Amino acid sequence: MNEHARRPVVATLGSHSALQVLKGAHDEGLANAVIATPGRDALYRRYPFVDDVFVVDDYQRIAELQPELAARDSVLVPHGSFVAYLGQRLNRTLDVDYYGSRSVLRWEADRALQRRWLEAAAVPMPAEYASPEEVSHWPVLVKTDGAAGGSGYFLANSPDSLRRQLAALGDIGYTIQRYIVGVTLYVHYFQSLMRDRLEILSMDRRYETNVDAIGRLPMAAQAELEPAPSYVVVGNSPLVLRESLLEEAYRMGERVVATSREMIDARGLWGPFCLETILTPDLKFHVIEISCRIVAGTNLFVDGSPYAALFFDEPMSTGRRIARELREATEQDRLDELVTGPEPEIDLDSKAPPPSAS
Amino acid sequence: MNEHARRPVVATLGSHSALQVLKGAHDEGLANAVIATPGRDALYRRYPFVDDVFVVDDYQRIAELQPELAARDSVLVPHGSFVAYLGQRLNRTLDVDYYGSRSVLRWEADRALQRRWLEAAAVPMPAEYASPEEVSHWPVLVKTDGAAGGSGYFLANSPDSLRRQLAALGDIGYTIQRYIVGVTLYVHYFQSLMRDRLEILSMDRRYETNVDAIGRLPMAAQAELEPAPSYVVVGNSPLVLRESLLEEAYRMGERVVATSREMIDARGLWGPFCLETILTPDLKFHVIEISCRIVAGTNLFVDGSPYAALFFDEPMSTGRRIARELREATEQDRLDELVTGPEPEIDLDSKAPPPSAS
Amino acid sequence: MNEHARRPVVATLGSHSALQVLKGAHDEGLANAVIATPGRDALYRRYPFVDDVFVVDDYQRIAELQPELAARDSVLVPHGSFVAYLGQRLNRTLDVDYYGSRSVLRWEADRALQRRWLEAAAVPMPAEYASPEEVSHWPVLVKTDGAAGGSGYFLANSPDSLRRQLAALGDIGYTIQRYIVGVTLYVHYFQSLMRDRLEILSMDRRYETNVDAIGRLPMAAQAELEPAPSYVVVGNSPLVLRESLLEEAYRMGERVVATSREMIDARGLWGPFCLETILTPDLKFHVIEISCRIVAGTNLFVDGSPYAALFFDEPMSTGRRIARELREATEQDRLDELVTGPEPEIDLDSKAPPPSAS
Repeated sequence: MNEHARRPVVATLGSHSALQVLKGAHDEGLANAVIATPGRDALYRRYPFVDDVFVVDDYQRIAELQPELAARDSVLVPHGSFVAYLGQRLNRTLDVDYYGSRSVLRWEADRALQRRWLEAAAVPMPAEYASPEEVSHWPVLVKTDGAAGGSGYFLANSPDSLRRQLAALGDIGYTIQRYIVGVTLYVHYFQSLMRDRLEILSMDRRYETNVDAIGRLPMAAQAELEPAPSYVVVGNSPLVLRESLLEEAYRMGERVVATSREMIDARGLWGPFCLETILTPDLKFHVIEISCRIVAGTNLFVDGSPYAALFFDEPMSTGRRIARELREATEQDRLDELVTGPEPEIDLDSKAPPPSAS
Repeated sequence: MNEHARRPVVATLGSHSALQVLKGAHDEGLANAVIATPGRDALYRRYPFVDDVFVVDDYQRIAELQPELAARDSVLVPHGSFVAYLGQRLNRTLDVDYYGSRSVLRWEADRALQRRWLEAAAVPMPAEYASPEEVSHWPVLVKTDGAAGGSGYFLANSPDSLRRQLAALGDIGYTIQRYIVGVTLYVHYFQSLMRDRLEILSMDRRYETNVDAIGRLPMAAQAELEPAPSYVVVGNSPLVLRESLLEEAYRMGERVVATSREMIDARGLWGPFCLETILTPDLKFHVIEISCRIVAGTNLFVDGSPYAALFFDEPMSTGRRIARELREATEQDRLDELVTGPEPEIDLDSKAPPPSAS
Repeated sequence: MNEHARRPVVATLGSHSALQVLKGAHDEGLANAVIATPGRDALYRRYPFVDDVFVVDDYQRIAELQPELAARDSVLVPHGSFVAYLGQRLNRTLDVDYYGSRSVLRWEADRALQRRWLEAAAVPMPAEYASPEEVSHWPVLVKTDGAAGGSGYFLANSPDSLRRQLAALGDIGYTIQRYIVGVTLYVHYFQSLMRDRLEILSMDRRYETNVDAIGRLPMAAQAELEPAPSYVVVGNSPLVLRESLLEEAYRMGERVVATSREMIDARGLWGPFCLETILTPDLKFHVIEISCRIVAGTNLFVDGSPYAALFFDEPMSTGRRIARELREATEQDRLDELVTGPEPEIDLDSKAPPPSAS
């Protein structure tokens, strides 16, 4: 071990998958710290493996912690609540090292860029149709502008049905997408720069309220209740994938990484990411989204997973995998390769690919 | 270790979660014993970690084992089959030390006392309505007297529907409760007296026949079969909870413990318990029941859970957690704090809070 | 350890549960090898625990590898893709030692023999009816000749409905079976010859597309989409069983093993097998199929399972359990007891029990 090398403190915001990230750092011998708003800090004080809890009145004031975080040589591990808490701008410009690529986070956040990237990577996605006339596969899902959490979506299985439902919208804007009838499966990847390989670490499906309850209601109960479906994620449950589909899952992930190095910047995507897939009876994947950071489904695997066990003979959560990577980089004095600083200010409305941040 | 301290034998009845309790004792270096009726004993003879198997013709005759259990300084670990096997009276009066509070078991068994306790703890529960006129939130679930396993329940989503269905009941008594459309999640808590903290050890959802099969039947199949739903639990599957809801889960548990010390007796509730929750799209918990002992969903986690791994660096089931607590108490000569003897005979029909058992 | 004993290389075909089998061998200190067609080999090169990857252009040409496999004293571990890749004939006649009984694989493959076996073992199976008139329990499932993956099946809940739907079939052949409305649960057994005991190692349910998606669609969405259900397995999720049903699960497994020694040949069934069950609200098992080799649901438990943890204090997948058995046999010079050579050529159309292969 290089004694003079940077030995980072692993820091993150207090939500989403923070416990796993902090525990992983602890298990790899790295110090950790969590930043939380008042009330949110209490959870992290319950666990002895959390070294420091910083409280900020408002995440927008996190910049005030920059000197303290810098003094500890902190590396922030972004997760799914970063954008919600910091907003797009602060998430990009915060002057603390992030583990992973901030350029990629911008591509993830913009649905048009994301689709361009995944299509270039030959990742199969449900077709989008510019107009009702262009629909070539039924059924379709229509998403109205501003739709969220299940309301503002509808399904149509024929031109007539689509026309009728669109007419009822009036002036509201919408997008039309092929609707895939199949089961969901989320693949948790880890692109290691230290070992130069892609690892599949685990898989899950989401547990959504109230749709996972409605689906269990017999027809008579549904007829009585007429419940409106919503798709709010409140948990996750574990899955494994049919082994004959695993290589294709790896290849999709590898193409996504390779393409990111061509389209986004020279460093591309590394660390944890997730492809959210739908599997159809013809044994095909359909990818509906990419998340370019740790996803909450990995919380199922704090004590190990059947996939991580194929690479590691000790429990290896995604959070611990991140810390392992940081530790190995520290030992080889290569930490700078794994982190990114703030991005330059850019026009948020621009759809153009950003300049390289590397 | 205090060599003169009590070193208990961990004993339980042969069903529910006994394997986990016995294995946990074994892993913590405590002797164990299981009591089973003929036929039920066979399962426990399969596993080498079970030290002693006692067979009783009938659980009502378990009192005959009292001298033998006492000679071994046994501590009985109650689980969800104790009341079914022993009945309320014997469960309360059996002259063998129980791990946990017997006063609390009585409050758990009485739905009115349970509701009073949980409401005092500010645990959100579905409203109960004294009459159809008082219903303020729809839909409602109507439970007829003597209903069980899914028959004798019905749903109503409007005053008209409720009136019509109640009229069909004739003279049968019923209760009306708000029906919550949301997904279920069972939180497995452990209140440690030795470490003076509340731990969330794991979570699950139930696997129920036939409703989990009906929910998977397409409409056409349901229309053909017209299956009557039932909710018989035959298994469990694992879950994790969205991290931002975890602190609220802890606080509900802490309020339940604190309130038990005010309302039930000075010692209150300790050891394993479970809140059975429903989560709605507004990210709120609704608690439908408390179980004040180990629940069967913990059987998923004999080899560890993602939540227990945040406290312990070795596989820690709830069964083993109980044994760890007993072992630590033994080592500190504090075992008496963890156990309760028989309760005094009381009027079973009384709804009044019982006298303190401590 | 007997230094002169055979020390086998554990080999399998590259699909289904091969990763688990190979990892298990590695963990038990045995060399391993995987045989795959071009493209399929890539997955196995990703994992450092895989010692050798053999590529064959076509599984039908696997016989060309026989000298190489024999030179390494290989033992092939069959799994659920063997018949699909090799065909019935080659699977029986391939001149490489198999772990497990090849006679039993033949009984498994023939539905009439399988039913004869399971009925002799008093394993409860859904009744089959020779004609519509003989139906004694409703509903029934009608399976037309050549049905697969959910198409060609229909349900009937009354004599009228059955008659009407059968009339629409015209000249197509069919079988009628009682349809059980209940939840599925797959029990993963391991019959150990070295320890002379039956072990339940884990349990799962299947994750099927698109039926697990349709079941989550609210009625209105189903009414719009009118999706045709299919039952293609793309994954698995973990379960535990109510403890009071576990002994019956053991006994069914033991009767299946004992009966196999009477009906199939003197050695009968050993190693991993699976009973695919449906559980009904009366807490009864209904067995719909037996798989006489490792099943894919065990892939959930590469890093251990709550049931295996009752026998072993280290993570014990079914794949590793096989390797443990082979290692123990090697150490005691008893490997020949665990393997079977090629079966004699027989008339494939014969339904008669085959001669003993032992």
